[in-house]
Amino acid sequence: MRELTLIGIGTGNPDHLTYQGAAAINVADLILIPRKGSDKADLADLRRQICDRVLTNRSTEIAEFDLPRRDATDPNYRAGVEAWHEAIAAAWTEAVSTRTPTPDHVVLLIWGDPSLYDSALRIAARLEPPPRLRMIPGITAIQALTAAHRIPLNEIGAPFLVTTGRRLRESGWPGEVDTLVVMLDGDCAFQVLREENVTIWWGAYLGMPEERLFSGPLAEIGPKIVAARAAARDRHGWIMDIYLLRRTPPGGLVEERAKV
Amino acid sequence: MRELTLIGIGTGNPDHLTYQGAAAINVADLILIPRKGSDKADLADLRRQICDRVLTNRSTEIAEFDLPRRDATDPNYRAGVEAWHEAIAAAWTEAVSTRTPTPDHVVLLIWGDPSLYDSALRIAARLEPPPRLRMIPGITAIQALTAAHRIPLNEIGAPFLVTTGRRLRESGWPGEVDTLVVMLDGDCAFQVLREENVTIWWGAYLGMPEERLFSGPLAEIGPKIVAARAAARDRHGWIMDIYLLRRTPPGGLVEERAKV
Ligand SMILES: C[S@@+](CC[C@H](N)C(=O)[O-])C[C@H]1O[C@@H](n2cnc3c(N)ncnc32)[C@H](O)[C@@H]1O
Ligand SMILES: C[S@@+](CC[C@H](N)C(=O)[O-])C[C@H]1O[C@@H](n2cnc3c(N)ncnc32)[C@H](O)[C@@H]1O
Repeated sequence: MRELTLIGIGTGNPDHLTYQGAAAINVADLILIPRKGSDKADLADLRRQICDRVLTNRSTEIAEFDLPRRDATDPNYRAGVEAWHEAIAAAWTEAVSTRTPTPDHVVLLIWGDPSLYDSALRIAARLEPPPRLRMIPGITAIQALTAAHRIPLNEIGAPFLVTTGRRLRESGWPGEVDTLVVMLDGDCAFQVLREENVTIWWGAYLGMPEERLFSGPLAEIGPKIVAARAAARDRHGWIMDIYLLRRTPPGGLVEERAKV
Repeated sequence: MRELTLIGIGTGNPDHLTYQGAAAINVADLILIPRKGSDKADLADLRRQICDRVLTNRSTEIAEFDLPRRDATDPNYRAGVEAWHEAIAAAWTEAVSTRTPTPDHVVLLIWGDPSLYDSALRIAARLEPPPRLRMIPGITAIQALTAAHRIPLNEIGAPFLVTTGRRLRESGWPGEVDTLVVMLDGDCAFQVLREENVTIWWGAYLGMPEERLFSGPLAEIGPKIVAARAAARDRHGWIMDIYLLRRTPPGGLVEERAKV
């Protein structure tokens, strides 16, 4: 494998693919698609669907491989992640090197954008010898969220913080910023917040047929999200959700927001 | 105008357009393209180029309109921006209402993603009567930056802050976060930073033929960026740049970063 391209494919809607992504798919020798076993959240189907639709290069092949599972019981979180990354790098290498002729140019279809809370870059850094790396940007879950709700990410000229559910739960609302985007939240960390005048815009399965949206004052809508999220996860067996929280600073921006 | 769609077109590379964006262009009655006069940065060309390429609906029309200028001399910044938004809303309305038959479904091609430091949503909120609004996500300059440098946006599980040059200049490095993305920076606000062990990844004209990239330790590369930025702006008459700053916390992440 002399060249590895990480292609952002967006977050569930196959139409999130860019023309640049489609072109990059078509110059690959091999497209690697991970399989997570019975878990519906492996979303391998979406990747196959994208290839069916845009792949016109008849010499490009597609190979599936079983994604190693992370040992969640490892008491050392960091070491557990490192071992897992190493195992994935080995799985990539095996999937590539067992083919004849050995493909030169390999492509991975990355959920959302390859730079945002994704480990493919770090896994790629473990490959020996290191391939030439390319990255193609993709629509992130953040953009999918704001588009679905038709809201701006930022107040005019103001900053925003992107963080994880774990961080929000551990550290609460960070200072100096009135807009938070929360990802990777396994259990509605917004429940720990004691701030007043917070509005939430929440979305699950964004861009997919199962898409769910809620928005409104956190105190009122938060409990509804907790219930709807649990029900949706039971029904589908998996869930992916993300939300934006905006705090109205004292003297605040309510009026402006109402107009938008 | 009964329906208005804001379509994110990415940040300079016409191939950033998504299939969803192309489809939305093709259901429009009218595509509105702003003209900024002689300023090369109006980038109207890119919009025309995108339309040339993907527009197959022969009943879709294209109209250009002169973008009102903001009165930068208004001592009240907020009032100046509001008046400007009002003037743009009026320009949209005029461009639409003077056509026969009056187009029902109007489309605007928005630089990057419509939710990120863009005023179209706020301008649309001034339209009377309010049209039905749709937003199509687009590749942001943030994604274009990380893809060009092949870097992750975040450290593993860590937050990042997106902010403006003005904020960075006024308030310095905000607490609790080791990664900053800085946009809308007219004059290299990173020069005010006194933090040590900061790495910068800088990009200008991302996705365009003029693209420039610099990265490395801020203390060493910062002055080179200042010089290169001034030279590029002189040569082209305009510039758009963005950068990511990462601070190595004490006890830090250098090793990990080196591996990536
Ligand atoms: C491992 S991260 C990957 C993010 C991805 N690289 C991106 O650019 O959006 C997974 C997290 O992204 C968010 N996410 C991704 N796709 C989503 C979707 N379709 N709907 C809601 N949230 C989504 C959730 O917060 C989820 O926990
Ligand atoms: C008014 S904001 C619009 C951002 C846009 N909506 C997006 O999603 O990226 C303009 C800022 O975006 C950044 N930017 C946009 N396009 C860029 C490009 N091609 N190269 C570098 N920076 C860019 C710069 O920081 C610039 O000051």
